Amino acid sequence: MVITIKPGTTEKGIQHVIDKIKELGFTPHISRGEERTIIGVVGENAIRARHTFEAMFIVESITPISKPYKLASRDFRKKDSLLKIKDVVIGGKKVVVMAGPCSVENKDMLLETAKMVKQAGACILRGGAFKPRTSPYSFQGLGEEGLKYLAEVSRITGLPVVTEAMDPRQLEIICSYADIIQIGARNMQNFDLLKEAGKQKKPILLKRGMASTVKELLMSAEYILSSGNYDVILCERGIRTFEDSTRFTLDITSVALIEILSHLPVVVDPSHGTGSRELVVSLSRAAVAAGADGLLLEVHPRPEEALSDGFQSVSFPIFQQLMEQIKKVAQAVGREV
Amino acid sequence: MVITIKPGTTEKGIQHVIDKIKELGFTPHISRGEERTIIGVVGENAIRARHTFEAMFIVESITPISKPYKLASRDFRKKDSLLKIKDVVIGGKKVVVMAGPCSVENKDMLLETAKMVKQAGACILRGGAFKPRTSPYSFQGLGEEGLKYLAEVSRITGLPVVTEAMDPRQLEIICSYADIIQIGARNMQNFDLLKEAGKQKKPILLKRGMASTVKELLMSAEYILSSGNYDVILCERGIRTFEDSTRFTLDITSVALIEILSHLPVVVDPSHGTGSRELVVSLSRAAVAAGADGLLLEVHPRPEEALSDGFQSVSFPIFQQLMEQIKKVAQAVGREV
Amino acid sequence: MVITIKPGTTEKGIQHVIDKIKELGFTPHISRGEERTIIGVVGENAIRARHTFEAMFIVESITPISKPYKLASRDFRKKDSLLKIKDVVIGGKKVVVMAGPCSVENKDMLLETAKMVKQAGACILRGGAFKPRTSPYSFQGLGEEGLKYLAEVSRITGLPVVTEAMDPRQLEIICSYADIIQIGARNMQNFDLLKEAGKQKKPILLKRGMASTVKELLMSAEYILSSGNYDVILCERGIRTFEDSTRFTLDITSVALIEILSHLPVVVDPSHGTGSRELVVSLSRAAVAAGADGLLLEVHPRPEEALSDGFQSVSFPIFQQLMEQIKKVAQAVGREV
Amino acid sequence: MVITIKPGTTEKGIQHVIDKIKELGFTPHISRGEERTIIGVVGENAIRARHTFEAMFIVESITPISKPYKLASRDFRKKDSLLKIKDVVIGGKKVVVMAGPCSVENKDMLLETAKMVKQAGACILRGGAFKPRTSPYSFQGLGEEGLKYLAEVSRITGLPVVTEAMDPRQLEIICSYADIIQIGARNMQNFDLLKEAGKQKKPILLKRGMASTVKELLMSAEYILSSGNYDVILCERGIRTFEDSTRFTLDITSVALIEILSHLPVVVDPSHGTGSRELVVSLSRAAVAAGADGLLLEVHPRPEEALSDGFQSVSFPIFQQLMEQIKKVAQAVGREV
Repeated sequence: MVITIKPGTTEKGIQHVIDKIKELGFTPHISRGEERTIIGVVGENAIRARHTFEAMFIVESITPISKPYKLASRDFRKKDSLLKIKDVVIGGKKVVVMAGPCSVENKDMLLETAKMVKQAGACILRGGAFKPRTSPYSFQGLGEEGLKYLAEVSRITGLPVVTEAMDPRQLEIICSYADIIQIGARNMQNFDLLKEAGKQKKPILLKRGMASTVKELLMSAEYILSSGNYDVILCERGIRTFEDSTRFTLDITSVALIEILSHLPVVVDPSHGTGSRELVVSLSRAAVAAGADGLLLEVHPRPEEALSDGFQSVSFPIFQQLMEQIKKVAQAVGREV
Repeated sequence: MVITIKPGTTEKGIQHVIDKIKELGFTPHISRGEERTIIGVVGENAIRARHTFEAMFIVESITPISKPYKLASRDFRKKDSLLKIKDVVIGGKKVVVMAGPCSVENKDMLLETAKMVKQAGACILRGGAFKPRTSPYSFQGLGEEGLKYLAEVSRITGLPVVTEAMDPRQLEIICSYADIIQIGARNMQNFDLLKEAGKQKKPILLKRGMASTVKELLMSAEYILSSGNYDVILCERGIRTFEDSTRFTLDITSVALIEILSHLPVVVDPSHGTGSRELVVSLSRAAVAAGADGLLLEVHPRPEEALSDGFQSVSFPIFQQLMEQIKKVAQAVGREV
Repeated sequence: MVITIKPGTTEKGIQHVIDKIKELGFTPHISRGEERTIIGVVGENAIRARHTFEAMFIVESITPISKPYKLASRDFRKKDSLLKIKDVVIGGKKVVVMAGPCSVENKDMLLETAKMVKQAGACILRGGAFKPRTSPYSFQGLGEEGLKYLAEVSRITGLPVVTEAMDPRQLEIICSYADIIQIGARNMQNFDLLKEAGKQKKPILLKRGMASTVKELLMSAEYILSSGNYDVILCERGIRTFEDSTRFTLDITSVALIEILSHLPVVVDPSHGTGSRELVVSLSRAAVAAGADGLLLEVHPRPEEALSDGFQSVSFPIFQQLMEQIKKVAQAVGREV
Repeated sequence: MVITIKPGTTEKGIQHVIDKIKELGFTPHISRGEERTIIGVVGENAIRARHTFEAMFIVESITPISKPYKLASRDFRKKDSLLKIKDVVIGGKKVVVMAGPCSVENKDMLLETAKMVKQAGACILRGGAFKPRTSPYSFQGLGEEGLKYLAEVSRITGLPVVTEAMDPRQLEIICSYADIIQIGARNMQNFDLLKEAGKQKKPILLKRGMASTVKELLMSAEYILSSGNYDVILCERGIRTFEDSTRFTLDITSVALIEILSHLPVVVDPSHGTGSRELVVSLSRAAVAAGADGLLLEVHPRPEEALSDGFQSVSFPIFQQLMEQIKKVAQAVGREV
């Protein structure tokens, strides 16, 4: 259930509620808004304790959350969550473009790409140092060396960096280099990784599993939130279907659905979602029109030479066109890029 | 293969080529453009006869079509096909909105809806007289009575009418009342119906089957085209996947994909595609942003009283908002509504 | 609801109940068992009339049917339905093998195949005269000529014949030649065809649509049953999934599920279900082990020369091995071939 | 590529080949058969070095492996791999039944279940100590305490134990208690976990991901094999499809397909695969008939009280019936239970 505290309540009063929650064996999750503080109470049959809290003078209202995801639910938080990463706000008016190569291949190409995408309007640099590859014989990423390049290029360009973690043992080191930690589609239900991610101080970009429903995505977000990390960005990246002309079927509807079900920001990855650079521009426009808070895009100076996923990476000229086009679509839906 | 005739060739010259095609046992499909006439030659191993035609003075070029769909392919026709239905052009700059109730329930509600959607900017009236229903015990539509109402409301409002045919035996009567014949998702591979539709003089709106690939949709269009009816509109309406929060998964990518593969116009049905009125507005924006040539929308004066699919029909006020929003998105992508 | 009539009730008594059902505006469906007669009462809110019938002396009990499919439900009929086609009983102890070529290509190959499959233990001859093909340029079947060959070979070998109808206009002629009418996966929701099939006097083999749930299959069967034809055989033939090593994913579970939900017999088509002759033998064993009442198999004297689906047809020697193997599996599950 | 060494070659000769492989920068994987030793050579463009080895006297033949999975492929090893776990052989004539509760709940119920399943013919005890649960608020398993119960019950009953690892950091401790390490469907592409599993000395039971193709399953097995652990058991446990009457769609065809593509043993989990205890018996029969080398079954003394997945666990009496039935089916296909 969610306890809404009356405006103007003192810190001491709030602490009193929190203590009571703990005393009853539940876990409190506090969200301080501009006017009101709300406290999520998580635990089996928490709702049975509602009378205890309703009786408190400083409690404005109690709202049960019937959904299996609690902290991720719109019922917990009516307003959209805004995440701040350095100067970038995700979840607000601005549609945030995160762009860069699929894999970090070397420092020069990374810097070249970062400068280009920044100049075209991207706010965040993406790039993989640890790569989940279907085959053990494929390029597995540069590892820590890649992280160093990301951090250095971030320092030079001022762009915050998002990169993927695949293993709980990597989280500490990745957090020391990157600004946002990505959890990939194949690890969306790697629950130990989610729990560890929930203990980090960095925002988590959680990609939807290729066979996961939107509700399961929200349940996985709940693992992170309930472990204490409230900064979660959801990402639609395409699901597995029978259609074989595209690598995955990008479920654009999920963007609108998540907006109804959750307060968390949602971004779309049309590069993996379509698996084809010819389709990336059109689907970027569609994602923004549907209400996405951001895009995750693979850009490569020479896509045909990319060490991974070259066929779905766009070149610099295409990326510039893409940015021009989504600026117009963003305006049409009351947003900006 | 496709034979491109030199500009300025006389009708007699063109006829000579056609005669030769028939003489060799193939079927000619003629498409007369503003400058040039092109002739599709369909038949097994047609390409082996290319030398016969290359030798003709009036032949400008010969292009093989490697795809299994020939007449539906971009290789057959580089330019987008434009379809004229009364004053409405589908496939051009204008994004054509086809709106109306799921089923025709009675004349009054149909007229009320038609006037409203016209006033808000829709160009074509949709409404089902013969309804494909999963259960034999559900409302099956008004049948010919429904067709009469559609024709009458069309006459009053000036809106052309699209309605569904489910049975080859219905085609003649439906053609006598309606302007566009819809073939539904469940009949996309009802090949006898497709062949009969190919003999009609009215445009066919062909909906994608819920388990059909884009390529199979184009193959089904090919059935109609190769039977002599070149006026086909494709329609994306959602595919079956494991995601159960929405009735189907609307495959917005298919819009961009069809634009690459085919010259035929493509419209999107977000009402069936999502199965939820809350999502229809967002997905309409996304469809237009992706490049759809039109939308097929369920509108009902009182959705909660609809005899079928009420939960996915939008009310008049929502429809007006939707039209306002897609006008802006259409402009952003260089189109208009 | 279902009305069970007391044992020993006279025909006049039963007629009285039937007249009352009609008088109330409902449709009666009569099933005469060895001991008892049961009458299905179909119509909106039929259950509200239960008191009228409960008051009748000859009525033993009233059972509501909560499922959307009524006549197809186990609630309507506890015992398995047995269908008699000439000397063959489907739905009983014997696992009925229906085998033959995908398409009827000519009389000689059909006769050759029929003799062979009969000798190996098949009871029914299958073969397509009207073929649903994805491409309009593929072989479409021999049509009525094919039906004549089927009838002639049936007369020679004594094997009853099953063949597909795709169009309501074909039903009359097909019924005049064949013993069982197949409705293919692509037409499972061709509701006009289902209704017409419900008016025929021949049993209908209804294949599951490639994107249809088991419940939708039962709803389609309900179209046929409620139109008056109670002889329906269901057929699992594989569904569309993301797995691309096989043409479809054969849903063997559906066999066991249908046995729980319905009294209708169910057969399995592992040829289409797997799309690969290497897998047909293994999946035939699995289908019988799961409880299938029969198999539908493509057999061709020279699979590599087949005009359609050769890659999934088994040769004569493989068919003989298959029959040997399923005989053993049938015995292991208390059945026989 | 695969190098087959001539029979009778000395250890020194074999070592010479291995040294050469390493010298060229490739990784050797050695498989010693009764007559011959074969060596897999893995590395980019390994096949280009074939002449170096063909020239060696002790080399009998060189076989390229065109598949992306090398060590998992039938091309690498023609004969079925046999795995020995204490006295149990997996992959041989015996169909190995692994049974037990979904989660270890306490020692008493585990012991009660183990004794019962052993008495009915099961050879391996299954039970989860670390549980992957969709919701962070669901029972997450007993952790190490559960492992201790498993080890103790294993000692008492003599049954080897299989249990799941979800995190690379758990592997060491799990290996110290269990005989087979399970990697669950949600972690099939948790590549770091696979690599760590490849360094363990215990056999790995690798479950197919719910949206993974059979080829991807083999690629994930390749991660383990290429890390040096050759003892891998594959497990089919159902895939995600649109069918909603069952929790997943058990892909029985994959059993027959894996037998063609790989030498690794394959077992089937009909409990998760169907999600319904009513279907488990029928699908167990089907799996054995299709050629499965084993079954993974959830058994619970009181399914209705289970802390997880009770609705798919079978009771003791049902388990006994199941064992009786699969014994007959196993015999029918030349196997035994």
